[in-house]
Amino acid sequence: MNLSQLKEAVCVANLELVKFGLVTLTWGNAGELTEDGDAFVVKPSGIPYEQLTPDDMVLVGLDGRVREGKNRPSSDTPTYVVLFRYFRNVAPQIRGIVHTHSLCATSWAQSRREIPCLGTTHADQFYGSVPLTRPLTRQEVGSAYETNTGNVIVEYFQQSRRQPAEVPAVLVAGHAPFTWGKTAHNAVQNAVSLEAIAQMARDSYLIHPSVPPLEDYVLEKHYSRKHGANAYYGQENVSNNLQKQENTKP
Amino acid sequence: MNLSQLKEAVCVANLELVKFGLVTLTWGNAGELTEDGDAFVVKPSGIPYEQLTPDDMVLVGLDGRVREGKNRPSSDTPTYVVLFRYFRNVAPQIRGIVHTHSLCATSWAQSRREIPCLGTTHADQFYGSVPLTRPLTRQEVGSAYETNTGNVIVEYFQQSRRQPAEVPAVLVAGHAPFTWGKTAHNAVQNAVSLEAIAQMARDSYLIHPSVPPLEDYVLEKHYSRKHGANAYYGQENVSNNLQKQENTKP
Amino acid sequence: MNLSQLKEAVCVANLELVKFGLVTLTWGNAGELTEDGDAFVVKPSGIPYEQLTPDDMVLVGLDGRVREGKNRPSSDTPTYVVLFRYFRNVAPQIRGIVHTHSLCATSWAQSRREIPCLGTTHADQFYGSVPLTRPLTRQEVGSAYETNTGNVIVEYFQQSRRQPAEVPAVLVAGHAPFTWGKTAHNAVQNAVSLEAIAQMARDSYLIHPSVPPLEDYVLEKHYSRKHGANAYYGQENVSNNLQKQENTKP
Amino acid sequence: MNLSQLKEAVCVANLELVKFGLVTLTWGNAGELTEDGDAFVVKPSGIPYEQLTPDDMVLVGLDGRVREGKNRPSSDTPTYVVLFRYFRNVAPQIRGIVHTHSLCATSWAQSRREIPCLGTTHADQFYGSVPLTRPLTRQEVGSAYETNTGNVIVEYFQQSRRQPAEVPAVLVAGHAPFTWGKTAHNAVQNAVSLEAIAQMARDSYLIHPSVPPLEDYVLEKHYSRKHGANAYYGQENVSNNLQKQENTKP
Repeated sequence: MNLSQLKEAVCVANLELVKFGLVTLTWGNAGELTEDGDAFVVKPSGIPYEQLTPDDMVLVGLDGRVREGKNRPSSDTPTYVVLFRYFRNVAPQIRGIVHTHSLCATSWAQSRREIPCLGTTHADQFYGSVPLTRPLTRQEVGSAYETNTGNVIVEYFQQSRRQPAEVPAVLVAGHAPFTWGKTAHNAVQNAVSLEAIAQMARDSYLIHPSVPPLEDYVLEKHYSRKHGANAYYGQENVSNNLQKQENTKP
Repeated sequence: MNLSQLKEAVCVANLELVKFGLVTLTWGNAGELTEDGDAFVVKPSGIPYEQLTPDDMVLVGLDGRVREGKNRPSSDTPTYVVLFRYFRNVAPQIRGIVHTHSLCATSWAQSRREIPCLGTTHADQFYGSVPLTRPLTRQEVGSAYETNTGNVIVEYFQQSRRQPAEVPAVLVAGHAPFTWGKTAHNAVQNAVSLEAIAQMARDSYLIHPSVPPLEDYVLEKHYSRKHGANAYYGQENVSNNLQKQENTKP
Repeated sequence: MNLSQLKEAVCVANLELVKFGLVTLTWGNAGELTEDGDAFVVKPSGIPYEQLTPDDMVLVGLDGRVREGKNRPSSDTPTYVVLFRYFRNVAPQIRGIVHTHSLCATSWAQSRREIPCLGTTHADQFYGSVPLTRPLTRQEVGSAYETNTGNVIVEYFQQSRRQPAEVPAVLVAGHAPFTWGKTAHNAVQNAVSLEAIAQMARDSYLIHPSVPPLEDYVLEKHYSRKHGANAYYGQENVSNNLQKQENTKP
Repeated sequence: MNLSQLKEAVCVANLELVKFGLVTLTWGNAGELTEDGDAFVVKPSGIPYEQLTPDDMVLVGLDGRVREGKNRPSSDTPTYVVLFRYFRNVAPQIRGIVHTHSLCATSWAQSRREIPCLGTTHADQFYGSVPLTRPLTRQEVGSAYETNTGNVIVEYFQQSRRQPAEVPAVLVAGHAPFTWGKTAHNAVQNAVSLEAIAQMARDSYLIHPSVPPLEDYVLEKHYSRKHGANAYYGQENVSNNLQKQENTKP
């Protein structure tokens, strides 16, 4: 995929956020790495989706510098930089990132609760709870805020020893979710899944305040139906299977 | 209806799941028996609905083997096999099955609560509560998982002595609903009804935490207005009346 | 308006129920009196809205007999008969009726709670709480069920001394709402209002479980801004003002 | 912008209320000041949105008199007059006002609760909680009701020493929200934001009844990312930045 095709794909992914009802006004963005993986294409800041064209997309290096584009990139760009640099080391198959303020996932982030795995729908997409970062300190907010937002996400995965390829979503405390996938399009799909399971978890607690978590052996089963070398969901290539690619690489 | 017509009908039923807002991404499927009843047509696994054509549908025998089709069938196919074999014995007029993760019905399944009959809307479609299966054991999940999902549904109906033709929906504990009907289209309609009554039951408990169940004589009346030999709802043929067909057969 | 125009208007009103999201499947109907007021046009029973044409509408006399139409009328027709006969005596300007199972209003009906007036949006449309009928007895359900549904609505208004022209909606306990207005179209608008205020009342209790009712002087003010001889909302003729017509007639 | 262009812009803003799902029936309106600031264009009262044309808009002076237009202006016009006169003194960059009964924001108003700032989405748009006015007294409702509605809003800002340019929304107790912005279009955007953060606050309390407010240093940071002289969100001109214009004026 050349740069022009990538801009097209990233533009389409951003418009999918609207199509799937994940964004209000301009509150969301998607980005994806270039072929060589040392830069990424991302939505410009604050431009209404109905005006968005591939040509508006911005190319940003993993050093955080804008390489090409007439617009200012998303204000969340430094968070993308931190995440893409981290993924390059631990899960290079992750090449797309999405950030939204989708209403129910954001409500969980505001509530400062991780989303527990209560059913197979969740287990199909996320291996265990959707994590919550710690809140940023006053200092972390005061300088390099967006970079530090990325840092607390990385910190969570490092300290918990959970794998971003198995849990392609996180809630930043008091803020909103980030999701990722093999492409920007796949990251959008994970954002769609996240919003759905956030709504179902909310409703499950309303219906039964002490609802138990899903049995671990069901979680294991459902996650491995769709992900990893032995996945049997979908046709031969499930493009969103982050595990499969990982396992089949030499 | 020949095979080509059946594929068309099943494809349409799958697209109706999208039209009625019952599916997120690819999380839902519909299938229907062939004329001779020893095979069924079902959605292929993991293919986006916008790409779905009748030609993508898969023909599967009641022995569980794929008979025709270029695609892998839905991963839920073994559950369909168990249910269709069971229905053949106890309610042969049931020829369509639907599985979705529609958000509110799935929330009840995750909450491990059956949906009690709180009003006439429920009674019009389901004769009593929408049942909940027991959870599958570790062993049942470990081998032949999808077959065992069908088995716990059958077990519920056998042990409770309730009739699948009177209660065309079930919640699999921790998982999601299955519905059925005379055709795949009718099973979709029951999935639509189920999601609506799931939302109303959730809201009824929010409004009045100790809401009483519907009086049994109202349940009886409403169910029999639409179902059975004396139904008087709709025009001469109410195609979704599973009781009427049952009663009028010799 | 001649019969053919009335059939067109009633057909349009039924389709508006779909447009405004008030109906699931075929669960809703609208009807309106003929010019001479001794018959009404109503939706046929169980026919999908997408197939509905003016020609499908059924003409029913206030004696309950079908006068014209190839289809069976809505199964709720006897309820319409009772209500139209009652309105003829106490509020002849009411000529349209709607019945839906709109989700949140029905949840209140199932919860067996009237909807208290919590804000000006409610007060703009309904003069005080939206009432709840008593449940029907076993006997009332056992014979002439739909007629008795109308009877308990009439009983409520008679015993409470509230005016149907001031409160154009009622919740039948365990069942669902009926609304009315000067035309079928106006009754649809009241059904839209009812669903909106039902959702807001549900949410208000979630946000503040002991939310106080609206001050009576605000209720009085808002209701009289839109209704009665001194209404000043809208342009010269507010067609849904049931009070104005009442007051200006000799 | 001449009068004819302004009527067009105000008409579009009113139709945006429908597009964004903020209005039921005719319950909402938008208006904007003329260039010279001594009059404003506003929606006519009670006219369905689908019939609305620029020519229907009404021009009203800040003395409250209709200057031009064949229709009666919105019944909320006296509230607009009070607010525009107040803004002229304290924040002349505010030139657009919107009033809706959007469902969740109105539920907070009915619940008589201000909406606390629970997350960055809120902080991006509103500097601190969305305020609630005191209820109007019987006397204030009894005469010049709509003027007094404006007065209690002004009273809130005067007594609290909060700035309407920093908090472009208010909930009138028992009634509904008003929002404002640099234009009617910007006021619509703030009404969209308000409804979204109202829904998220409701859900956050459902998920976690004792959810803490957002840290004040995060509120500060997020608000100043989008507003004021140092804003860095969006492209060079963020048209909805009420602070920037204020600060850059001599």
